[in-house]
Amino acid sequence: MAKKIPTRLYLDEEEIPKNWYNLRSDMVNKSDPILHPGTLKPATATDLEAVFCKECVKQELDDTTRLIPIPEGLQEFYRAYRPAPLIRAYFLEKALGTPAEIYYKHEGTNTSGSHKLNSAAAQAFYAKAEGLTSLTTETGAGQWGSAMAMACAYYGLDLTVYMVKVSSGQKPYRKALIETYGANLIPSPSNTTESGRAILARDPTTGGSLGCAISEAIETSVKTDKCRYVLGSVLNHVLLHQSIIGQEARAALEKYGVTPDIIIGCAGGGSNLGGLIAPFMGDKIKGKSKTRFIAVEPASCPSFTRGRYAYDFGDTAKTTPLLRMYTLGSGFIPSANHAGGLRYHGMNPILSKLYKDGYLEARSAVQTDVFDAAVRFAKIEGILPAPESSHAIKAAIDEALECKRTGEKKVILFGLTGTGYFDMSAYMSYNAKTMGDSIPTDADLERGFASIPEIPQNK
Amino acid sequence: MAKKIPTRLYLDEEEIPKNWYNLRSDMVNKSDPILHPGTLKPATATDLEAVFCKECVKQELDDTTRLIPIPEGLQEFYRAYRPAPLIRAYFLEKALGTPAEIYYKHEGTNTSGSHKLNSAAAQAFYAKAEGLTSLTTETGAGQWGSAMAMACAYYGLDLTVYMVKVSSGQKPYRKALIETYGANLIPSPSNTTESGRAILARDPTTGGSLGCAISEAIETSVKTDKCRYVLGSVLNHVLLHQSIIGQEARAALEKYGVTPDIIIGCAGGGSNLGGLIAPFMGDKIKGKSKTRFIAVEPASCPSFTRGRYAYDFGDTAKTTPLLRMYTLGSGFIPSANHAGGLRYHGMNPILSKLYKDGYLEARSAVQTDVFDAAVRFAKIEGILPAPESSHAIKAAIDEALECKRTGEKKVILFGLTGTGYFDMSAYMSYNAKTMGDSIPTDADLERGFASIPEIPQNK
Repeated sequence: MAKKIPTRLYLDEEEIPKNWYNLRSDMVNKSDPILHPGTLKPATATDLEAVFCKECVKQELDDTTRLIPIPEGLQEFYRAYRPAPLIRAYFLEKALGTPAEIYYKHEGTNTSGSHKLNSAAAQAFYAKAEGLTSLTTETGAGQWGSAMAMACAYYGLDLTVYMVKVSSGQKPYRKALIETYGANLIPSPSNTTESGRAILARDPTTGGSLGCAISEAIETSVKTDKCRYVLGSVLNHVLLHQSIIGQEARAALEKYGVTPDIIIGCAGGGSNLGGLIAPFMGDKIKGKSKTRFIAVEPASCPSFTRGRYAYDFGDTAKTTPLLRMYTLGSGFIPSANHAGGLRYHGMNPILSKLYKDGYLEARSAVQTDVFDAAVRFAKIEGILPAPESSHAIKAAIDEALECKRTGEKKVILFGLTGTGYFDMSAYMSYNAKTMGDSIPTDADLERGFASIPEIPQNK
Repeated sequence: MAKKIPTRLYLDEEEIPKNWYNLRSDMVNKSDPILHPGTLKPATATDLEAVFCKECVKQELDDTTRLIPIPEGLQEFYRAYRPAPLIRAYFLEKALGTPAEIYYKHEGTNTSGSHKLNSAAAQAFYAKAEGLTSLTTETGAGQWGSAMAMACAYYGLDLTVYMVKVSSGQKPYRKALIETYGANLIPSPSNTTESGRAILARDPTTGGSLGCAISEAIETSVKTDKCRYVLGSVLNHVLLHQSIIGQEARAALEKYGVTPDIIIGCAGGGSNLGGLIAPFMGDKIKGKSKTRFIAVEPASCPSFTRGRYAYDFGDTAKTTPLLRMYTLGSGFIPSANHAGGLRYHGMNPILSKLYKDGYLEARSAVQTDVFDAAVRFAKIEGILPAPESSHAIKAAIDEALECKRTGEKKVILFGLTGTGYFDMSAYMSYNAKTMGDSIPTDADLERGFASIPEIPQNK
């Protein structure tokens, strides 16, 4: 007889995964290699180690090892906030009157407020183990900067965070949280780097951009002794670290004999989506399941649904290695959208390949629809979701209502990546009905596509 | 053999208490009755039902029933966010180098961010069950207003929240959270009530006070059909609802054969402290344990440590029934302190009686020491605590360091009442080293004591 499913499914502490799952090892058609931007040949470990920690580079390039051990010193940190709960959305199911079962993996129970801490802790752990003394990074919406600040406070590393200037002004409390954890926060562009000074010389009043903040963070890390740069999404090793999300979710569901029919995640750079779906996608690739996977992105930054599959740069200054991915072009400027964590022109290469090969679906949602879903969810389930996560909520509600129409009792799993406590200005805008939607025109997209490099691989 | 104690001790869903524990039933010397302010005789149910829900009044007056059932429709709501975790502070123990075992009950994992939701849900449930359609309340720091807004959204009740004007201006995001959950938020004093208009006529620029907001909320509830007033602390039925905290903590500790030697809670009106200690205090009263209980209050509002044990009003306008409690006088104006939830002149009557009779110790802490402890805790344990909760953290660290000095392996339990996500302006002030401490002079206290009513019972 099936066990009664509680509202909150917690694994025991000893059930926290001891290994990360490397989805690429099970992919028949691998994602394409990273290219060195000068030689246009696959980047080597040596190329990448100038910027990233060695172990992260090793993981970035490894597409064959299936399980990669989580070091004990990192497992210890994970025990401070994991396992994260998997929640059965009984209240939402009832409110919608759907025959579907809805589950969500809640990654926002830690102080940084999102899943980002899973990779921040890993990257800080390796930096410490490799004898580094400081790290640099950038942050836009602020979740990644908060996560890195917490991880560096724990492992005893100095951290410099370049925060997009307009965000640091709009989100003074995010800034305060990052500073409370001891990080040195610099609004970007700044006078601390050549790239920052160059941008300020051209436009002294600019509010900055993620691309500019990345350039400043990389420049500072390269110039600083025993320092490296860390990134919170897009790259393969970040997705690897996030596989802990999907593994915990699958372990909790398996205890009750539940297999998801549909898995939904919001998609910015892809770290949450990739981590959530990883083990389930492995099953699908091996023909063991027919689960559908749905990526939900903002209509204002639609890299999957309207982007091109091409080699492109990760930053607007075009200094990073080239990734083959769905991209709007590194020159694409997304309109203001409160889901700052999803405002990125590209998409992780693994997810891009899976989408290209038909394993993954994608759709986009406009901001006001997303906040309709967010507020509905908050009142019914009692959790105030992050704007990013609310993209997945919107799609989960739509799928559950489709089940109501058809009478199908499907199992839906979605990723609640984080909480909205530091996004109240967005909720204020929604409550005041001053929130708008903004969808790029075809001409806007063409301007972005023009920035994709014309290299032989893109012909 | 003792089981290994995990970092997070979760009860199973079916272990959430089905009854509240009424500590008064086990007290040999009961706390004194509430007095009608006109007759100076014990208030009757009829007196109180003009303002409060019937079931809450019944609970308020009941000092004999030991276990009071939690209705199923409320248990359902509790399952949305409970059981709350009990956390073993392994990281803090290690950082302090103490032989003590430290545990904390984390009540801040719900969106309202504190334990207040436990009583908010109960009061909203009863209001709905009794056929009411709306409720009024006041909020200062905002945790109670947020909790009531969530509870009323769930049970389908209209809610009007009078928020102290200076707080609603200082905490726009708290205001936004309350409004997102659908409550009507009115900065107090306002033009919507006679008491508000009277105060504004005297001082048009006043920032308001909790006492004034209470007066406005009560006035509106009395004038509104099918409406009652709800309060988030001080009263006995609120402590009853909060007994779920202590019961869960004791159940989780018992699984591992652990008995606390010291239990520490922050003390404002007393709802968290009373709820946390209730079942453990019952054991002590019956001679079954020698646990020490420590209340920690802000030095700026020291009702236990410098107050008087007397009958006093609950509000500054002197309209409420009289409670026998430790009080600084309803006319005492506490200096600005970031732990807004602890800025109350009085203390729950049950706790006051226990303190008077020597069952409970009390101490005070100055604000900067409290924030030293808060930031230390945040970096070590990874949770950003509310300023209120940080009073308990401060005392727990002090007791653990005393164990280090003496070599005693004591078991310390404290209440982490909530998170500090909506208190970042306080952390900013601390980080900028602009935070001050403010301790009332004896003359300040004398001015407050002068407002305590001169009635025969106070001679």
